Order: sequence, then C-alpha cells, then structure tokens
Amino acid sequence: MILLEPTFESDYSFAHNTPFHLDGGGSLQPLTLHYAMYGRPNSERDNVILVCHALSGSARAADWWPEMIGDGRVFDTTRYCVVGINVIGSCYGSSGPGSINPQTGQAYGGEFPLVTVGDMVRAQEQLIVNHLGIKRLHAVAGGSIGGMQALEWAVRFPHRVARCISIGATPLSAMGLALNHLQRLAIQNDPHWQEGNYSREDAPVAGLALARAIAMCSYKSADLFNERFQRRPNRNGDNPRKSLHDRFDVAGYLDYQAKTFTRRFDANSYLILSKAMDTFDISCPGESELETLHKIEAQLLLIGISSDWLFPVSDVKSLAERLRLTGIDARYAQLRSSHGHDGFLADANLLTPLIRPLLISSREERRQFHARAVGSCV
Amino acid sequence: MILLEPTFESDYSFAHNTPFHLDGGGSLQPLTLHYAMYGRPNSERDNVILVCHALSGSARAADWWPEMIGDGRVFDTTRYCVVGINVIGSCYGSSGPGSINPQTGQAYGGEFPLVTVGDMVRAQEQLIVNHLGIKRLHAVAGGSIGGMQALEWAVRFPHRVARCISIGATPLSAMGLALNHLQRLAIQNDPHWQEGNYSREDAPVAGLALARAIAMCSYKSADLFNERFQRRPNRNGDNPRKSLHDRFDVAGYLDYQAKTFTRRFDANSYLILSKAMDTFDISCPGESELETLHKIEAQLLLIGISSDWLFPVSDVKSLAERLRLTGIDARYAQLRSSHGHDGFLADANLLTPLIRPLLISSREERRQFHARAVGSCV
Repeated sequence: MILLEPTFESDYSFAHNTPFHLDGGGSLQPLTLHYAMYGRPNSERDNVILVCHALSGSARAADWWPEMIGDGRVFDTTRYCVVGINVIGSCYGSSGPGSINPQTGQAYGGEFPLVTVGDMVRAQEQLIVNHLGIKRLHAVAGGSIGGMQALEWAVRFPHRVARCISIGATPLSAMGLALNHLQRLAIQNDPHWQEGNYSREDAPVAGLALARAIAMCSYKSADLFNERFQRRPNRNGDNPRKSLHDRFDVAGYLDYQAKTFTRRFDANSYLILSKAMDTFDISCPGESELETLHKIEAQLLLIGISSDWLFPVSDVKSLAERLRLTGIDARYAQLRSSHGHDGFLADANLLTPLIRPLLISSREERRQFHARAVGSCV
Repeated sequence: MILLEPTFESDYSFAHNTPFHLDGGGSLQPLTLHYAMYGRPNSERDNVILVCHALSGSARAADWWPEMIGDGRVFDTTRYCVVGINVIGSCYGSSGPGSINPQTGQAYGGEFPLVTVGDMVRAQEQLIVNHLGIKRLHAVAGGSIGGMQALEWAVRFPHRVARCISIGATPLSAMGLALNHLQRLAIQNDPHWQEGNYSREDAPVAGLALARAIAMCSYKSADLFNERFQRRPNRNGDNPRKSLHDRFDVAGYLDYQAKTFTRRFDANSYLILSKAMDTFDISCPGESELETLHKIEAQLLLIGISSDWLFPVSDVKSLAERLRLTGIDARYAQLRSSHGHDGFLADANLLTPLIRPLLISSREERRQFHARAVGSCV
C-alpha cells in the first residue's frame, strides 16, 4: 500500500488567553490540534471535506482510509481539499493525556479532563473557521466515533456543513455502553494503570491489550470469525486441548492484534475516547431530540453496515427515519460487509458508490462529474 | 422462591486404586463427585432424569432450575428421580482446583489438570451406573455446557440414554472461543492469580469479576439490555458525564452481578470449565462427525434460544439437521426469549411445552399423561 502524503501537516494552538471550556466541566489552556491536509483549498475555500477519525485513528486520514482519499477516489484530492484533525484526548498530536499540563509541567495522565464529541467538534470548528478561514465545509464524513463527530457538526454548526456522511454511528446502545465499560475496567484493573499516572516505560500494557481485544470482538462479526478461524488451533502450533495457555486461532489473532495496538496507543487516551463515545447523544443539552434535529441544514447520508452488531443497522436506519420525519434531507444506505463495525475500513472500497451521489448533488457538479466520467472512458 | 430440597445429597468417590485418566493427559486419584437427588428411583430404576448444570451451577439442580423440577413440573419429582451431579473442575463439591491434591496435601490450584466435557460425562457415568445402579437414563438434559454434557452422553454412552435434551449448545463458534479466551485473560492478567496458586483470602477477585461481566454480555441480548437499561445513568446517582468512574446503568448492573459472582465462584474453576467449553466437539477423537453421530440411540431434542448470540439458533438448527440426515430421531424446537443465552434459566417456564412431548413419547406414558391431565382438570 502506497500511502498518500498530506500536502500540509501542522499543529494549531488556541485558547491561550482564555481556557477552552469542556462540556464535562474541565478546561484546556492552551489547546493544540494536529491536522493534515490532502489537496488544496480553492479560492472560495468551499471544496473542503473534513474527515473525522475513529477511536484509534489520526489526522493522517489517507493512512487509515486510503481507498477513499486521493486522485480519482471518492474524496478526490484533485477536486477537494481533505482535512483530517486529530481529536482532543487522543495520542496523535492533539492535546491529550500524554500532553504536558502547563500548570504542572508534567503530562496530564489521569488528570486529563473528560471530553465529549461536542468538545472535539467545537475545537475542530475553531481550526476550520478561525485558522483555515473555511466558512462552510463541502462535507464532513467519518465512521464510528468519526461518524458521531460528523453528526455533531451538522447539529452544532448547521450553517457550516453542506453535507454530512456518518457511517456506523448512533448514540451507543446499552450493549455498546456495557462493552466500553468492560474495556475501561480492563485498563483500570491493571496495577500499572496507577489512576492514569503511569510512566511510558511502565504503562498498563496488559490491560490495554485486553481492552482492545474486547473491542475487536465488537468491531468484527461472528460470521467473519467463523470464516477466518473456524475452530482451528492457533497457527503457531498451540494445542488448546493440552494446556490452559494453548489457544485456538481466533485467540492467537486477538492477542496479536491487541499487542500490536499497545505499541501505538495510549491507555489514558483509550479511556477518554471510549468515554466520549459513551456520552454522545444527538440531543443538545436541555433539548429534545426533535428540537435538536430541526436545526440541521446539511444533506445527510447515514450508512449502516450490514454485519455491525455494535451499531446495528436497525439503529442507524431508525435515526435516518427520525431525521426524515423532521423534514431533514437524510438518506440511508447500507454497506454490505461481513466485517462488522470495521466494515467502513475493511470494505472502504464499497463505500464509494454509496457516497459519490451525495457529493455531486448540485446540478453543476453533476454536469462536471459526468463530463469527467465520459472523459475517463476514452 | 421456595427451594425444593433434594431427597438425597451426597458425595461419591472412586478411582481410589487406579487413577481416572483425563482426555488432556492428566489424571485424578481419587475422584469425588457431589450429587443430589430429587424424587426417588422406581424399582426398575428407569425413571431417572440426569440434569447437567451450566458453568456456574451445582448438583442442586432445583436451586437453579426451580421452574423445571418438582411436583407437577416438567421434571415431575413424583414420577421421576431427578439427579444433579456437580461437574469435575467446579467448586461445588466435586474434585476441582480447590480440592486437596492427595499427592501434596495442598489444594490443586494451578496444578489442576485440564478436563473435557467428555471427562465430566465419563465420571458421571461411573456414578450413575456403578454407584446408583441405573442402567439407562430416562433422559439427560441441560443448557449451555450442560447441554454439551447431554449431547456427550448420547454420543459416548448410546445405550444408557433414552432421551437427550440439549438447550443452547453446540461446539463453540470462533466468536465464542474468542470471548472465553478474553474471560480467561481477565483472570490471568490479575496479579492475584499467581498462576492459579492464590489463597482464598487473596484471590483474583477483580479479574474474575471482569471475566463474569464479559460473559454476562454474551449471555444476555442487546435488546434486553436496551429494554432494561436504555442509556440511563446508574441508579445509584452516578453521572457518567462528570467522571471516568461514574457509570451508565448497564455498567452498574454488570459490576453488581460480577461482584456477587466472585463471592460464590472460584477463578481456577472458571478457567477449567470455560476451557472445557472451548474444547467440546461432537466428534469423538479420530472420528468424523458423521461416524460419531451414527452411534446415537437416544431421541434427541435440541432447543435453540431465539435471542442467543453465543450459541445462535442457526448453529443449533444446523446440528439438528445434520443429526436427522444421519437417521437420528432429532427434533428442533425454539425457545422464544429476549434473554439471550440465559433464556434457558430466565424463561425456563417456557421450556415445559417444548420438553414435555419428548418425555411422554412412549404409548404407555402418553396414556398415563393424558389420564393425569384429565384428572388435574377435575
């Protein structure tokens, strides 16, 4: 896989003089956002697509969504300027638990305040509008907690979003809340966690690995696991009938994935971001869902993933229906994938035909698109 | 709930002179089985129903399946003698990791050998045939790993089983194997586990609680969780938006259930029994599934639970079909329950109409049953 390098990658810091207040009561001062751009804004700056990443992603959207971003891809970098922004709370450049708390000169660790999806999006809006001078996004798109951010943009900043593409995202069900809770418990049970105040060399690796392995089960589907692993012993030669430690193949896979993850992700960030996922609700505080949804001006495309059991298609479909009932232009499409929730990454190539019609929904754009399409057939 | 006391409860020890060899290569000497009887065997000893318990159950079957066992219940103790036997590896009276290893004078702890569902059933057969003098069971029944035991009885001891009722049980799918692996990791990650050689006062409680909480998610259904808990904050007053430790209601429920469980169950037993679940396969060693299934003489009733995602109905149904294709009298029935895998306990009252026809399948029994049924209407 050849990764597309961003045309521009930088940090933006703000809230130097007045703290950035968070929904949960905490605040950050200053607040840094790491971002990456692929392609260039046009003179009107109306060709920007913001791509919001999922729990373990980063601003470098083309690294984790390569099928979607680039020359000739659905987010065509010769037409659009694709922006990725690392969310606050993460460990890929934006303010997070591993950042230095200017009040103490030490990393925040367990002192990092709770953040919400709303906080993430309010911070992104500062960068998009105040720093990059983009008045209105051509589109905002993402899957999982990235899809939550996309919805939050449409709700909080209605006039800043022309199109919103949210994949495999609704407020978490009770089962989703349960599984996130257990993932956090796995980390917090690890004696190395130390209420979040661990050193990089002595991090709660086993707890984070278990958290990730639980998550993997919820991101994948039972059918996919059966197809890939059946009841075969682990490929390293384990004999699960002989010892407690010998594994079946699916267990070896989970352990491998989990271990790899601990090399690239921080346990405190995991806690903060999974909690943000938990608390995401469409309704703005003090409003009914109906009142909140009424504000949306963007065209919405909600995509459910057929084998997703963390965000079941029935929930995504039902949200699209509620949106339509309030008069919003909300379409529903289904991604057929056996990969479960992960389908928006694993079967990203199948998203193109679902998303393209939304992006070219103006008459002029449709004309240009067809001209290009004819040209490409020559 | 008034619990039905067993008419008889005792221990049976055997393998005093020669060790009881286990499928995994280990052995036990002697081997003790704790058992309970409800009702009395008739003079022919052909009215015995063996009820096999699930992972956390015990020989006292009427304690955990009260809707099923008693006067007038489907396992009618005025007609049948219901026998419950604690499985080897458990912590409710039979030989398990908490038992004294006669070779060392200490508890086995982490030295307890792996056991299989086959080992459990071979041990039970010793008690049933050699000790109780029962040549043929009227029926053997159970759910989950209890249902695996019921199937194993039908396969290993075809002439000893007239009827086999197996509920929510097939060989575990890859997802099931994955979830069991993570539960064991949760225990083994706990520094108190000490490779299984912990004291009762310093047991891996947090790890066992997490294991149980993961299991609870697989035993219940997403719909049930939504219905019961929605996205409500924990009923103790937690505000999950204010702190990392404040929970949603479903998380409070899981923590409570998990904590309660740690007071009554042993972590090493959990490891041994979940491993036995993993390794259960219908086929006898060195045989194809077809060859093994051909041996069955019992009438089989396989029950799938509509909302069970650990043992999906499609898997149970498919096993029943494979059995029928080999000429076995295997029926399939579905328990409609929103409780997920736990449905065989939570909705046990709904099992009666599914099971009763099998129990009264001989002409004479049908006659008696109808006579009683008419009588009871008077």
